[in-house]
Amino acid sequence: MHDPVKLLQDLIRCPSVTPQDLGAQDILKTRLKKIGFEIYDLPYGEGNDNVLNFFARYGTGKPHLCFAGHTDVVPAGNNDWQHNPFQGVIEDNIIYGRGACDMKGGIAAFVTAVENFLSLQANFSGSLSFLITGDEEGPGVNGTVKVLEWMKEKKHIPDFCLVGEPTSAQELGDVIKIGRRGSLNAVITVEGIQGHVAYPHLADNPIHKLIEILSSLTTLSLDKGNKWFQPSSVQVTSIDVGNKTTNLIPATATARLNIRFNHLHNGNSLIGWIETQARRVAEHCKIDIVVSGEAFLTEPGNEVQAIRLAIEEISSVKPRLDTGGGTSDARFISNYCNVAEFGLVGQTMHKVNEAVPIEDLKKLSSIYTQFLKNYFL
Amino acid sequence: MHDPVKLLQDLIRCPSVTPQDLGAQDILKTRLKKIGFEIYDLPYGEGNDNVLNFFARYGTGKPHLCFAGHTDVVPAGNNDWQHNPFQGVIEDNIIYGRGACDMKGGIAAFVTAVENFLSLQANFSGSLSFLITGDEEGPGVNGTVKVLEWMKEKKHIPDFCLVGEPTSAQELGDVIKIGRRGSLNAVITVEGIQGHVAYPHLADNPIHKLIEILSSLTTLSLDKGNKWFQPSSVQVTSIDVGNKTTNLIPATATARLNIRFNHLHNGNSLIGWIETQARRVAEHCKIDIVVSGEAFLTEPGNEVQAIRLAIEEISSVKPRLDTGGGTSDARFISNYCNVAEFGLVGQTMHKVNEAVPIEDLKKLSSIYTQFLKNYFL
Repeated sequence: MHDPVKLLQDLIRCPSVTPQDLGAQDILKTRLKKIGFEIYDLPYGEGNDNVLNFFARYGTGKPHLCFAGHTDVVPAGNNDWQHNPFQGVIEDNIIYGRGACDMKGGIAAFVTAVENFLSLQANFSGSLSFLITGDEEGPGVNGTVKVLEWMKEKKHIPDFCLVGEPTSAQELGDVIKIGRRGSLNAVITVEGIQGHVAYPHLADNPIHKLIEILSSLTTLSLDKGNKWFQPSSVQVTSIDVGNKTTNLIPATATARLNIRFNHLHNGNSLIGWIETQARRVAEHCKIDIVVSGEAFLTEPGNEVQAIRLAIEEISSVKPRLDTGGGTSDARFISNYCNVAEFGLVGQTMHKVNEAVPIEDLKKLSSIYTQFLKNYFL
Repeated sequence: MHDPVKLLQDLIRCPSVTPQDLGAQDILKTRLKKIGFEIYDLPYGEGNDNVLNFFARYGTGKPHLCFAGHTDVVPAGNNDWQHNPFQGVIEDNIIYGRGACDMKGGIAAFVTAVENFLSLQANFSGSLSFLITGDEEGPGVNGTVKVLEWMKEKKHIPDFCLVGEPTSAQELGDVIKIGRRGSLNAVITVEGIQGHVAYPHLADNPIHKLIEILSSLTTLSLDKGNKWFQPSSVQVTSIDVGNKTTNLIPATATARLNIRFNHLHNGNSLIGWIETQARRVAEHCKIDIVVSGEAFLTEPGNEVQAIRLAIEEISSVKPRLDTGGGTSDARFISNYCNVAEFGLVGQTMHKVNEAVPIEDLKKLSSIYTQFLKNYFL
């Protein structure tokens, strides 16, 4: 079996904090080229927005399976790391480093799984590809979104895509993500009329209206969830007025909220809902909404079954199918083909001392190898 | 008729911004001593908290009528005054100056009214007094509150007290205040648990609880008001969270509110109400409450009738009896005897270019003179 440990250490040693790459993708391209992949460099964006991406393909037949992932990482944060975050130090059989589980570990595991698989079956009917981006953690406008447009144009859209994000919760293999909730951020500002608290009829208290709006947005549940999704959730994250004068009714009040929504809603339906609830109370309030991603779901089929069996065979863990947690590039991929996500335990991602046990890394590589067998053979 | 104009100008020329006096009370004491009043100096407070007050009495019989007022004024504010705020400039028959209507004008009018009355009837059965404080606009702890304690001890509590604050709204004589609402300020802080918006069940959003609390405090009306009082009013004056991170549920949320309440409630009953509504939702929230004054009412009797008749006789205006607006020292006096308030039009009080038309000042002096006749004769 090809060893993912050294590959992961090499990747960690490229401090590829978004949108820097610093050689991380070169390591992968060289490795994939060596085993017969065709490499397509796909940089997008100008100047400081420039992002490196690549697409790599082996074979031309069907079914076409794609592995998607990102080489960029979040910053290391503060100085509290026990080991240099960009060194890939191994201690007690654990590899430490930014990106160890999110998600250079997943990439290393799949590259070695492909190497294993091709050693076994170089001439399988079907094709394999990699969709690798250097901007998943950042704005994402020059990453996966644009690579997919290119793939569609060049007829490289796969039949199924596996995203190697760290989806496992407590132990490796316990969670496969078959969808993700959408996310929307709204800022609501109510303008009233300033005045003296003793004469509220000469003023118009914007805070009272804002309270009424927020109450209706948080009290009535959007839905009860369903077979695959937890109920959509509205969370008010801030309210800001900033008035220290106790006898003053201020002129303005602002609130921020986030909605994580399941596929019973979409960005537009929720924009309409917020607008209706808000303007019913404060007709001319200011509402700014950004939909950072739509909800999506891939009803589990043969591909997910193949992942599931591989996990059970290699680790004896029975995975559950989940749509919770944050978001990922799978939301873009779902517009083109069936997609699911499976990878390492994500507990240390984005944190200090991010790490992956060597045993987990090797086991993941084995699981991916078995998945490839299940999928193609 | 004794002329209140020069007396008001002399008072304005003492820049008696709380707690400074700078000769204002001396002017009054000299004037009252000259017409036979016994003067009692009543300074309270040490060092920077020192406040000048005085009590002056003419006669010993009943009924005993007291006029209460303050010689201190609020600061001039910015530099936008058309005339020097401490000069008492007359232009177009209007006297300009800080305190012109709040409330040196009222004091000048009543002093001259007393001079008029005593010229007419030096030996009336009854007695007259003045309760003059140098701290009504400030903290008030060393002002009227303490003078009243002294008055009680020395048996100078009157049968009725008239406070000369500027109570008129649109034209001189249109409003007599027979009570005032109480005022309370509360700060409510809810502590939750910080977390990621995608995992609200691992967090505890304090904002949602605060919204629920504030909604219950502002939606259910405290009362519908009654014959003399408008409904009690709860005004949320600020909500502050200060969280700019859109995927973060913050740990804390704070709100400030003011309640202007009528005599159907008191400070303690409202503290109990706020505590109940708040802790029902967030058991351990932090609640800080300051009651700045209780509500009070003097059911109108002969004294108010005497004022009313005087207004109607001199100005032909029919006054309404009111309890609205802000607060005054009458709330302390009401603990000792019947009290009502009547004075100039207050529209320019606390503002730039505070002023009183000479015609109003003279008319007020006449009204007060007629009131004294109505009350004693």
